[in-house]
Amino acid sequence: MSAPDYGTSFAAWRTASGDHWRAYSHHAFLEGMKDGTLPRAAFLNYLRQDYVFLIHFSRAWSLAVVKAGTLDEMKAASATVHALLHFEMDLHIRTCEAAGIARAELEATEEAPENLAYTRYVLEAGHSGDFLDLMAALSPCVLGYGEIGARLLAEAGDTPYRDWIETYGGAEFQTLCRDTGALIDRAVAHRLGPDAQSLPRWQQLCRHFTTATRLEAAFWGLGRA
Amino acid sequence: MSAPDYGTSFAAWRTASGDHWRAYSHHAFLEGMKDGTLPRAAFLNYLRQDYVFLIHFSRAWSLAVVKAGTLDEMKAASATVHALLHFEMDLHIRTCEAAGIARAELEATEEAPENLAYTRYVLEAGHSGDFLDLMAALSPCVLGYGEIGARLLAEAGDTPYRDWIETYGGAEFQTLCRDTGALIDRAVAHRLGPDAQSLPRWQQLCRHFTTATRLEAAFWGLGRA
Amino acid sequence: MSAPDYGTSFAAWRTASGDHWRAYSHHAFLEGMKDGTLPRAAFLNYLRQDYVFLIHFSRAWSLAVVKAGTLDEMKAASATVHALLHFEMDLHIRTCEAAGIARAELEATEEAPENLAYTRYVLEAGHSGDFLDLMAALSPCVLGYGEIGARLLAEAGDTPYRDWIETYGGAEFQTLCRDTGALIDRAVAHRLGPDAQSLPRWQQLCRHFTTATRLEAAFWGLGRA
Amino acid sequence: MSAPDYGTSFAAWRTASGDHWRAYSHHAFLEGMKDGTLPRAAFLNYLRQDYVFLIHFSRAWSLAVVKAGTLDEMKAASATVHALLHFEMDLHIRTCEAAGIARAELEATEEAPENLAYTRYVLEAGHSGDFLDLMAALSPCVLGYGEIGARLLAEAGDTPYRDWIETYGGAEFQTLCRDTGALIDRAVAHRLGPDAQSLPRWQQLCRHFTTATRLEAAFWGLGRA
Repeated sequence: MSAPDYGTSFAAWRTASGDHWRAYSHHAFLEGMKDGTLPRAAFLNYLRQDYVFLIHFSRAWSLAVVKAGTLDEMKAASATVHALLHFEMDLHIRTCEAAGIARAELEATEEAPENLAYTRYVLEAGHSGDFLDLMAALSPCVLGYGEIGARLLAEAGDTPYRDWIETYGGAEFQTLCRDTGALIDRAVAHRLGPDAQSLPRWQQLCRHFTTATRLEAAFWGLGRA
Repeated sequence: MSAPDYGTSFAAWRTASGDHWRAYSHHAFLEGMKDGTLPRAAFLNYLRQDYVFLIHFSRAWSLAVVKAGTLDEMKAASATVHALLHFEMDLHIRTCEAAGIARAELEATEEAPENLAYTRYVLEAGHSGDFLDLMAALSPCVLGYGEIGARLLAEAGDTPYRDWIETYGGAEFQTLCRDTGALIDRAVAHRLGPDAQSLPRWQQLCRHFTTATRLEAAFWGLGRA
Repeated sequence: MSAPDYGTSFAAWRTASGDHWRAYSHHAFLEGMKDGTLPRAAFLNYLRQDYVFLIHFSRAWSLAVVKAGTLDEMKAASATVHALLHFEMDLHIRTCEAAGIARAELEATEEAPENLAYTRYVLEAGHSGDFLDLMAALSPCVLGYGEIGARLLAEAGDTPYRDWIETYGGAEFQTLCRDTGALIDRAVAHRLGPDAQSLPRWQQLCRHFTTATRLEAAFWGLGRA
Repeated sequence: MSAPDYGTSFAAWRTASGDHWRAYSHHAFLEGMKDGTLPRAAFLNYLRQDYVFLIHFSRAWSLAVVKAGTLDEMKAASATVHALLHFEMDLHIRTCEAAGIARAELEATEEAPENLAYTRYVLEAGHSGDFLDLMAALSPCVLGYGEIGARLLAEAGDTPYRDWIETYGGAEFQTLCRDTGALIDRAVAHRLGPDAQSLPRWQQLCRHFTTATRLEAAFWGLGRA
């Protein structure tokens, strides 16, 4: 299957990141989820770190509201923050509880270096850059999870990680990804015009995307049991 | 009537701001809304500027999510952003349309210096300080509107500005104010402990509150027809 | 005389700001310095506010180091911060002392709304935008003072404000202005390429420059005795 | 020998970081520099990464100027930025050239994940917190290098890494460390008063220090040949 279409900016950034994209999107952790061979303990480690991740990811999307240039950008980013904090976070806590990780244990998780590296890189790219820098650094996560989810949903057979795959491969998350890709394309056009990809600025955005992709690939390594 | 109770931090900051608080909360603009003598053109000017204000106010509350220290603080600030951008903003646009200000005119409003001064002061206090600095700079607006609304609702007779008064004096906004006051009290205790008011840090928070109050008082002057 | 040449970005932004530029650069306060009719008390008020201004101006140039994209940009901005904090600030304190304003009085200055508005606007433009946004918001001050100083040096006769005029019209400050103008032109080219002025992004930079110019013009009003 | 005295805040944070401090300050990389067994290639890798590190470290100290609360804090942080960008950076480039790493190679260094993690953590702690958060996150580097340099200078015999040891163990850097420690103690007292260590806020500062120490320890691992 071909990768889902999340717009032209993402497609160009993805290509520019070269082998890093495949290293991230086809990581052994994911293949282990697909065929069910991923050890349970590895998945639980990932869930614990993902709790801390979601907090900083929500902060990054809130920073996008601060950095937005139009009311539409503000509303889109704010809707994502709201969904993350008021729904996805609760879902994550329930998933963890069902997996035997109590809320208190979750909250006591020591943030792994790979987690710190990725989230702080994204937040700092946003603080020191503008809305586009933040979008370029955020998109490997949002849109990457969409692409991974879609592929695994198509490829996976019977696996204990079906729920995870259906969450990110499912219609709701795919719609969010297409909307986010369109938001990014509009934001690029709104600032850099129709020839954005020919500007030096574009290379800076590619660098943010590639670095964030490298750090996302390392994040899967957190699943080590 | 006595002022509504929005918690101990607000009460202390309000006292520390001295005459500035009364200059803000009893401004001629407000007395004119209360007795109905405020010229319509003045109110429309205020509405136009308030549209731009709401954008930056939403950005400031989003910055609070970025700066929050707990999941509860993040959720509370995010709920405010969501309400501002997805409900209050639309309500404001409809109110303006009913008053004969088309959306395009609203969006073309040139931001007045008094508006720039207040919103950028609050945002910058947040950027360069921490969550408490931001709360101290934000609270004259949120909690001040609550106090003003409650007083005007109790005191006002027949006036064309009844809708405005009922919005801010009404139960929903009063609940938001009490919740925000409690959020601030918890945030202070969570960082500075039970004797927060004895610390030098407290004086810095008082300064933010007082400066923001001065700038809020000047904002009413925008109502000049 | 024609205005000094501080590069193409400044020239374009200056033109885009329309009448606001003349309102700022030919303000009555400046004409009063030129012909010596400016009341002493007005100048002293200005000096007091300028002390607070210099603190926030130094913070804004430090933010430029944080936001810089190259080592050259970092070094240029850092050299300005260093000159401001370690030399200009001391000079300002001595000038004020010579004028009868003791250091303690200077430090106790209550920041005027016009001062708050300008400095916080610049800082916030930097925090929420990128290096170029910050440069566009900072340049009416740096380069405007250069242009004003050069004109007043050429036009002024005998006036008690000769020192001020010679500081900003003199060779050292003019060199700083040309260097800063060149830094901005390089920074624009480094990000937006040779056709920067045709991009929507350019209009955003023009808006920052124009708003900062409006707020700078209001700053002269602080000289009211 | 006992560790040098860099003030009470550092001493308390160091103790609170527990075993992480020893893991950082007695890392195998350092013992290898001390006894001369560290492979040359490992040291060159470290030098390459340290070039990128110095850029972000300078940005972090510039952010300290933005976040400072007093003119003294601004001046101290600005002097550090100036020394880093205008002297230490040039020294580093010359050291690398002498070691056979050309400037162009240095500038093309791909930032390692451990480098990204530490620098972005520090910067983000500063962006989202206040001056004290930034100082707590910065101090394991500045003051840790001072402590390490002093110890290695006392303990090291003949080693090819003598220059590095003398730089950080030498009088000039030790003075900088004592001054920075005093700056931090004053900044703590200026905000949190004499009982700072009893406040919940103190625990947050300890957490920043400990996390930064963990990430600094990992940085030495960059020396892998």
